[in-house]
Amino acid sequence: MPDAPAKKPSKADQRREDLRLRLIDIAEARIAAEGLGAIKARDLAKAADCAVGAIYNVFPDLNGLIMAVNGRTFQALGKTVAASVAASPPSKPQAELITMSLAYLRYASENQNLWRALFDLEMSTEMDVPQWYLAELGKLFALIAAPLARLFPDDSRHDIEMMTRTLFSSVHGIVLLGLQRRISGVPMEKIEGMISILLSNVTSHSKIS
Amino acid sequence: MPDAPAKKPSKADQRREDLRLRLIDIAEARIAAEGLGAIKARDLAKAADCAVGAIYNVFPDLNGLIMAVNGRTFQALGKTVAASVAASPPSKPQAELITMSLAYLRYASENQNLWRALFDLEMSTEMDVPQWYLAELGKLFALIAAPLARLFPDDSRHDIEMMTRTLFSSVHGIVLLGLQRRISGVPMEKIEGMISILLSNVTSHSKIS
Repeated sequence: MPDAPAKKPSKADQRREDLRLRLIDIAEARIAAEGLGAIKARDLAKAADCAVGAIYNVFPDLNGLIMAVNGRTFQALGKTVAASVAASPPSKPQAELITMSLAYLRYASENQNLWRALFDLEMSTEMDVPQWYLAELGKLFALIAAPLARLFPDDSRHDIEMMTRTLFSSVHGIVLLGLQRRISGVPMEKIEGMISILLSNVTSHSKIS
Repeated sequence: MPDAPAKKPSKADQRREDLRLRLIDIAEARIAAEGLGAIKARDLAKAADCAVGAIYNVFPDLNGLIMAVNGRTFQALGKTVAASVAASPPSKPQAELITMSLAYLRYASENQNLWRALFDLEMSTEMDVPQWYLAELGKLFALIAAPLARLFPDDSRHDIEMMTRTLFSSVHGIVLLGLQRRISGVPMEKIEGMISILLSNVTSHSKIS
């Protein structure tokens, strides 16, 4: 069978896509200003000038909309981390890991509500995480794995991946408790220094395990 | 002036104290079963067989009640961590840190909702955290600081405290993302191993910074 000719999007398709993007913009602004708790269907519909039911024509549920916002946040975070390494002169792998971690800290600190929403949305390895979301995570982890692979040339890809996840989780824990000013956290003015010490120490070994 | 004679608690005082303890028991069971979201004044009052307003005679607000539950959780967590070291034969400081971290992982894993409530209750260094809560945290941190002080005898108390908070936050990050099965976390079956590697590597240096 010959391929069907490329179909011009119908006016209805175009309207749907406009509404989808408008809802993501509105939800993004609300999460940034007030956090996940500000996401209510009725308010969003009012701001987007549509019926409440119309939201569910373009997203399966509100989690689907939040996931779309998180996708943008995650992409911006990945770009910030990538740019931090690209902007530095070529350096030792340890220094690269520290540069990326401090970029993560800065992004989280400047976009606290959007960043918290990444982790507050219920989403686990047992759920149906969209392929594009896993691809974004893969890109971020590849940035961390690259200097680790130079540091630990004899270790397997699996070991490098486990260390990538371990260091990501560790830095995440320090940033999370620190930014929230938890009584158990590292004080704000010490976070950068302690992340640097942690990463330098962990990686000054010739093998991972 | 002579001291006032010790006053026998009145019947009213006794009833107040009974209600306070009953409410903590009920709230603790609900948080354990369903998490912080299950704490609603009306339900608690019904279960405790009191008027809704009576709750606020014994606690300033629901956060005060949750704080009391968290106090118990925190105390149990501290005891578990302390017991893990006491139960092991005297060993190297690194091994002690790993033993305590694995006890933390186990406690969190077996009491997930109670443990999450510790971190989900809004509470920062800028708030009026009760003295007894800070004392519990101090005890937990003293357990971590002890082996660190043996590892880094030339470092200041301040450096040891910062490293205590850094390692606590790191292990917390690994446990948190791992137990939630976040797509960015360390897989469950690898958490123990990766915590051990992280702590061994970080602490096999003669100075903190």
